[in-house]
Amino acid sequence: MNTIISKLGKFTSETAQVDEAAIKPLPNSRKIYVEGTRPDIQVPMREISQSDTAISSGTEKNPPIYVYDTSGPYTDPAVKIDIRAGLSPLREKWVDERGDTERLSGLTSAYSRERLNNPKLSQMRFNLQRPPRRAKTGINVTQMHYARRGMITPEMEYIAIRENQRREMMEAQGNELLVRQHTGHDFGAAIPRLITPEFVRDEVARGRAIIPANINHPESEPMIIGRNFLVKINANIGNSALGSSIQEEVEKMTWAIRWGGDTVMDLSTGKNIHETREWIIRNSPVPIGTVPIYQALEKVDGKAEELTWEIFRDTLLEQAEQGVDYFTIHAGVRLPFIPMTAKRMTGIVSRGGSIMAKWCLAHHQESFLYTHFEEICDIMKAYDVSFSLGDGLRPGSIYDANDEAQFAELKTLGELTQIAWKHDVQVMIEGPGHVPMHLIKENMDLQLKYCQEAPFYTLGPLTTDIAPGYDHITSAIGAAMIGWYGTAMLCYVTPKEHLGLPDKDDVKDGIITYKIAAHAADLAKGHPGAQIRDNALSKARFEFRWNDQFNLSLDPDKAKQFHDETLPQEGAKLAHFCSMCGPNFCSMKITQDVRDYAAQQGMSEDDALKKGMEQKSTEFKEKGAEIYSKL
Amino acid sequence: MNTIISKLGKFTSETAQVDEAAIKPLPNSRKIYVEGTRPDIQVPMREISQSDTAISSGTEKNPPIYVYDTSGPYTDPAVKIDIRAGLSPLREKWVDERGDTERLSGLTSAYSRERLNNPKLSQMRFNLQRPPRRAKTGINVTQMHYARRGMITPEMEYIAIRENQRREMMEAQGNELLVRQHTGHDFGAAIPRLITPEFVRDEVARGRAIIPANINHPESEPMIIGRNFLVKINANIGNSALGSSIQEEVEKMTWAIRWGGDTVMDLSTGKNIHETREWIIRNSPVPIGTVPIYQALEKVDGKAEELTWEIFRDTLLEQAEQGVDYFTIHAGVRLPFIPMTAKRMTGIVSRGGSIMAKWCLAHHQESFLYTHFEEICDIMKAYDVSFSLGDGLRPGSIYDANDEAQFAELKTLGELTQIAWKHDVQVMIEGPGHVPMHLIKENMDLQLKYCQEAPFYTLGPLTTDIAPGYDHITSAIGAAMIGWYGTAMLCYVTPKEHLGLPDKDDVKDGIITYKIAAHAADLAKGHPGAQIRDNALSKARFEFRWNDQFNLSLDPDKAKQFHDETLPQEGAKLAHFCSMCGPNFCSMKITQDVRDYAAQQGMSEDDALKKGMEQKSTEFKEKGAEIYSKL
Repeated sequence: MNTIISKLGKFTSETAQVDEAAIKPLPNSRKIYVEGTRPDIQVPMREISQSDTAISSGTEKNPPIYVYDTSGPYTDPAVKIDIRAGLSPLREKWVDERGDTERLSGLTSAYSRERLNNPKLSQMRFNLQRPPRRAKTGINVTQMHYARRGMITPEMEYIAIRENQRREMMEAQGNELLVRQHTGHDFGAAIPRLITPEFVRDEVARGRAIIPANINHPESEPMIIGRNFLVKINANIGNSALGSSIQEEVEKMTWAIRWGGDTVMDLSTGKNIHETREWIIRNSPVPIGTVPIYQALEKVDGKAEELTWEIFRDTLLEQAEQGVDYFTIHAGVRLPFIPMTAKRMTGIVSRGGSIMAKWCLAHHQESFLYTHFEEICDIMKAYDVSFSLGDGLRPGSIYDANDEAQFAELKTLGELTQIAWKHDVQVMIEGPGHVPMHLIKENMDLQLKYCQEAPFYTLGPLTTDIAPGYDHITSAIGAAMIGWYGTAMLCYVTPKEHLGLPDKDDVKDGIITYKIAAHAADLAKGHPGAQIRDNALSKARFEFRWNDQFNLSLDPDKAKQFHDETLPQEGAKLAHFCSMCGPNFCSMKITQDVRDYAAQQGMSEDDALKKGMEQKSTEFKEKGAEIYSKL
Repeated sequence: MNTIISKLGKFTSETAQVDEAAIKPLPNSRKIYVEGTRPDIQVPMREISQSDTAISSGTEKNPPIYVYDTSGPYTDPAVKIDIRAGLSPLREKWVDERGDTERLSGLTSAYSRERLNNPKLSQMRFNLQRPPRRAKTGINVTQMHYARRGMITPEMEYIAIRENQRREMMEAQGNELLVRQHTGHDFGAAIPRLITPEFVRDEVARGRAIIPANINHPESEPMIIGRNFLVKINANIGNSALGSSIQEEVEKMTWAIRWGGDTVMDLSTGKNIHETREWIIRNSPVPIGTVPIYQALEKVDGKAEELTWEIFRDTLLEQAEQGVDYFTIHAGVRLPFIPMTAKRMTGIVSRGGSIMAKWCLAHHQESFLYTHFEEICDIMKAYDVSFSLGDGLRPGSIYDANDEAQFAELKTLGELTQIAWKHDVQVMIEGPGHVPMHLIKENMDLQLKYCQEAPFYTLGPLTTDIAPGYDHITSAIGAAMIGWYGTAMLCYVTPKEHLGLPDKDDVKDGIITYKIAAHAADLAKGHPGAQIRDNALSKARFEFRWNDQFNLSLDPDKAKQFHDETLPQEGAKLAHFCSMCGPNFCSMKITQDVRDYAAQQGMSEDDALKKGMEQKSTEFKEKGAEIYSKL
């Protein structure tokens, strides 16, 4: 997979192509759109059709299953994808209608203008013709602001339809085996039976959920992050000074959303960050997050002490006008907290946190992110960029988990949340890191308390340090748990964590692993409808509908590939066994045999079992009912 | 990896060879032996040496780290491995000394004699010269029996030394960074600071731990399974009618123990089960478990209804005299429980459970495993085979989790535990299966209650059904949690679960994933010394000792391979950055820079930070201390 660069040669905007693997239809799947109250609300879902079940009286239909679809137009064969043109701006009309923004005559950021006018970059530049948009002077254009004024935006309605995944329709079918679900344990969440547009509005208004939706990213399909909604996952991509190209980063993005990435963070720290980001945003149907301080640092050649508020501010404007949907801002790394990290095993492991710590120490000054926080809010609300308040002091080892520095910062993030909310700016809070299982819940509890239920967005946490190469797994354990406890979005960790830059294979491994964690959390919380897919897949498994089992899984390609390693013949897809046990030993088959045996006796299985039982029960009772009495 | 058969051609006892990959020394590791109170107690550990840390005044030594070593003599270059001869019988003298067993003149099992005398099998037979051993008439030779009589066996002392992993020595060195550890949360376990031989004895006597140690498997290195000891993992191997050879199964075993398998279950259901098992046991330093009903079913050509107590009994004797250390016996699948499974999504998914259910229904009789349970105990105590009471009614889907059938069986397993304990026979209890996170704890709580703290041994549980191809991960989440709650041994799940027979790659993936889960559980329980390896690895990581980071990890090969994909040069192993962020962005490097910066100011880092803080603090206070007042 990592041979893209060599295959394609130098990246140019003229020759840029979509990754063929990203637009291949998923097996037995169809893109459908559910219409809202207006024809331009068309909510995409993936419909997975199933084959019939053979029963004695003929066949029984298995209904199609609907799953949340993050892949955007890429998996719609009716849409012609040309990454040079970017995606269609589906939200543009909605933003226009609100009439509270204006088209700018040019780019606000000096750096953006410089990049635009640099002839050397023309070959790699995405040529966006549309001028950037900004709120009219003095106006707030955040979804939170609308929500607080009682307005249900098309974005909110879109989200309500999307979150329900047609479960009201599935439930109306009355198929108990499909829709029955365990009562969850949600630790005080407030998940309704059905998500309504009004519920979305209310959650955004009170800050319990965010809709990352920059007015300059109209290509994005609205989604929500909050503890009363489906748990989301984020995929980090981005180049470094040592590797990757624009083409490769765009491919990581399209690959990540194909497998279920709900948002993507572009963490590039290498060459041409500005142009790379533009290509990603123009082609991304999911919100894009960044850490602006990374690029600001590049602008001062990596010398943290030379960073200034002005450079940082220009970077915020640059990225806000490109359409970044959320910014990680490490404003909680305050000067007084830095000494608290001196006794740590691994100091400050957040890149943003360490950059700011270095700046603070070099200047013996409070962080400019903290001192300029309200000015940052002013920028955020002019474009509707959401805060992702960074945990710059997160623990980088089990040893450092839940220490004074970490929680001092978390408390500060809670204070900053209040300030952002004062401005009606949307906020989520980043969380750790490396935390042993028994200390995870304290993180969630304190976050809920300090940050008043602003959505928590955690990296793992990793539950042990001893497995580099497998940190997608060490962290999936912690991620599933903290997702259950109430975390709204889980930032994936790939197998390459601590070791190298992830390639496309790693991106997919990270995504699938985190889809597992997020879904396990939804099940444990008892999120309505979450169990439908498990039920459908297990029914297919039990009935030896192998292809349905593969197609309903998170990764149909791998499931099929593993099965086919030992039984590649097409006929084996109908066989009532697999290579694990062979024909005689399959427990599923034996259970079927038990049911068939009962059917042959001319009674229903249940009756057959009960009848046999009653006879035996009487016998046992006559013999004294105690099996061990005779021994 | 799966090309072994084709490489080696037909397996014959004459040409059988050890897998070269299994005897390769692990990097920077040395096998050491810690001697007990007698010279023939030599407890193996793996010593991982570390490089020095460069500090301003020269270098600082990093002590070697000791890790639990399941790999047996295979990783000791001083031992010449010849799998045709089998391993040296290290426990033979201890068994002899006790004087309570006798050598039999021949094999007790009719089937074993038939196999021995079948000339067609001579080419593939492991030719054990030693006659089998059995307890003298009327004598009980279980470790539990000795323990209850107050006897500390060499096995118990061996285990005490092994469990401590030299942590008393590490602690005596006074290296706070290495030995400091979070206080755990152990849900009522009773883990002592140091494991003593007397503690081992006491735990075995009360049934809270077992030492699977068949007198006919003297090659095994004693180990213990109990909630107050390190969490163990089991690896399932075994052929099926559709694949694998003796050579391949032996290689899976040696591969599994290399990466940390504490026990191995041979679940073969295909050809030459008897001979395959003999080869595995003779070459295994870890306890071997089996499910005897699988082989019994093979003896009646897969027709469950033709199974009889006599055939089963002969199979128990056959396997007990080969040296199987624990038997999974599905004696809790009682006739009255079978109808409870009729409404399930996936019926009975345990192979053993479904075989017994079919037998019960066909005969309308109570299971012969249940009715003959005390006779089974008599066999167990004559060879010291431990029970692993099978969960034949475990849920095979999220839908079926924690249902009536499952818990009815669990309660029965508790009753059977009491019967086994009456005979001083060691018992552990098998657990599920598929369980959403929020229903996992109920499994543990009921198991502790019904089975009086007999060790719990769980398969996962899988926390969702929707990820075939990744069920090592769906289940690692559940395994880590239930391990934390008190499960003593975790049965691995490989990526091939539900799809096919695992090959060597899958075995390794399953093992590493479960080592992660078990270790995460140890950390969360606060098992003394568990954090040493995390601390050492994190220190190495922070100090850019790349090779030490790799060598201390669960899989040095993969860690190094991932790192080297982007930075293969040997010099990069000393570089203070990696390909993730490149030289300017590495947070670890920046933190080091912060510390260096402080050092340049002629003060300790801590002082520098404090000094700067004090100055600033004064300034801030003079300005009114409220950063937002001026905005």
